[in-house]
Amino acid sequence: MTAPGFTGAGIDRADQLRLDETALRVLAQHEGARLLRLAELDPVLDEEGRLLWSPLGEEAADLIFLGMDGDAPLFAPLVAVEAFGQRAWSVFRLLALMAPRDAAIWGAARSLNEWHNRHRYCGICGAPNGPFRAGWGRRCTGCGAEHFPRVDPVVIMLAEHEGRVLVARQPQYPQGRYSALAGFVEPGESIEEAVARELIEEAGTAVDNVRYVASQPWPFPGSLMIACLADARSDALVLDRNELEDAMWVDRAGVTAALAGDPDAPFLAPPPFAIANTLLRRWIEEEEGE
Amino acid sequence: MTAPGFTGAGIDRADQLRLDETALRVLAQHEGARLLRLAELDPVLDEEGRLLWSPLGEEAADLIFLGMDGDAPLFAPLVAVEAFGQRAWSVFRLLALMAPRDAAIWGAARSLNEWHNRHRYCGICGAPNGPFRAGWGRRCTGCGAEHFPRVDPVVIMLAEHEGRVLVARQPQYPQGRYSALAGFVEPGESIEEAVARELIEEAGTAVDNVRYVASQPWPFPGSLMIACLADARSDALVLDRNELEDAMWVDRAGVTAALAGDPDAPFLAPPPFAIANTLLRRWIEEEEGE
Repeated sequence: MTAPGFTGAGIDRADQLRLDETALRVLAQHEGARLLRLAELDPVLDEEGRLLWSPLGEEAADLIFLGMDGDAPLFAPLVAVEAFGQRAWSVFRLLALMAPRDAAIWGAARSLNEWHNRHRYCGICGAPNGPFRAGWGRRCTGCGAEHFPRVDPVVIMLAEHEGRVLVARQPQYPQGRYSALAGFVEPGESIEEAVARELIEEAGTAVDNVRYVASQPWPFPGSLMIACLADARSDALVLDRNELEDAMWVDRAGVTAALAGDPDAPFLAPPPFAIANTLLRRWIEEEEGE
Repeated sequence: MTAPGFTGAGIDRADQLRLDETALRVLAQHEGARLLRLAELDPVLDEEGRLLWSPLGEEAADLIFLGMDGDAPLFAPLVAVEAFGQRAWSVFRLLALMAPRDAAIWGAARSLNEWHNRHRYCGICGAPNGPFRAGWGRRCTGCGAEHFPRVDPVVIMLAEHEGRVLVARQPQYPQGRYSALAGFVEPGESIEEAVARELIEEAGTAVDNVRYVASQPWPFPGSLMIACLADARSDALVLDRNELEDAMWVDRAGVTAALAGDPDAPFLAPPPFAIANTLLRRWIEEEEGE
């Protein structure tokens, strides 16, 4: 089975060291210690498409301790960001070149950096926050409250009806691209309830029998994508035109052609590092396995 | 199959109305409009253990629009909270009396209220935030940034080894109580990776074959609990004594006895509204189904 993108970093996060400042100082002086290179928040690649790392010199800046890669301690810089929330389409071209492991390591560094920048001040008292826990938290300089990185669960799903699945396009997608529907999980609902709610809201599609398929972290800025299948009660659609430009039901041949990059496919598939791609693949594999 | 606690509210959240102030004013004047009664953030119950609701009078306070219960618009008050993060053991006694649907409705109101209180100030610029989107967001009075409710994904899991599952107790649990291990999903990891990491960190247990089982929202303060099973490579344990007071492997007979409340059971099971209970039940049902 295809592993979802942004997984498989294979690093020991060694969270027991995050509050141990003595151990972290020793690790930072380790001859194998490496610092991830970033361009703003984007990855910096060598000629072969691998992440670039620097030796950890006399860096004065704040560091994020990513974990241990065997004996080598890995760090990322804490970067000041001025513009938020851009969907970094240019990064997607780099990601297409990157090994999944590199994408996973970079993704964690990107998400943490964006979280730090969005949480410079304490939500409880308004005083400035500063990083602690080796970059895995912030503590308020005023009231002392501790804050931890935010991860937003998002459901992404294929409704299935008589051998066809529902794909849709948002206006900002590249030409021809269709993908699975998705939406944030809200307070007070389960994964299964969020899947059913989003399909009703965006496509007017009532579903039963929601099945979890796979998950991935998504670093734009920090989501946990939770991919599911569900059985639609009918193929009638009522689209929310504020969210979706179009939607259509595609059969197995159409999805197979799209995943193969066939120019005659009914749509352009989402890229391999997006879990919508994994989800479409798993749906094909599931049918093949039956 | 047993549905997880805090699910099944059965309300139409009608999110398309949240930004429609005219529609919300009309709904607030609807004769069936109801306001959830809260004691601080705790539920207020009638003699039969049902949530108490008030007619929606000339309330000046900010309201959360929970959604439509058939024709009836449901609202919750936005409450000022002074003390955060208490594990409300007293509430657990009320929850044991409540129908799952009532627990689900109250849970959403509780999570949203705690989120509002923890996000009075903008993390980006430090200026005060105010509620918008009918209680489903906050907007900064300074920089205008929009903030949305936080939901923290948490993995909760049973490692399985030769017909036994791993349960553990934290020091603050009631006497005799054991439960599934759990931990927050971090930026840059999938559900499956978080399950494997937490089991290694807390119990020294390496696992393969992580399987999703079920999910629930958990309103203390706002988690999405994601319950999984995984295959342990051995039954050796190395406990993290900062997290766990004890852990043990329990066979099917022991889990069945605990779920039945048998006084001779090897441990006191988690309460029915906790997904750890659902997870233990599903593990028994899975074995029965084989």
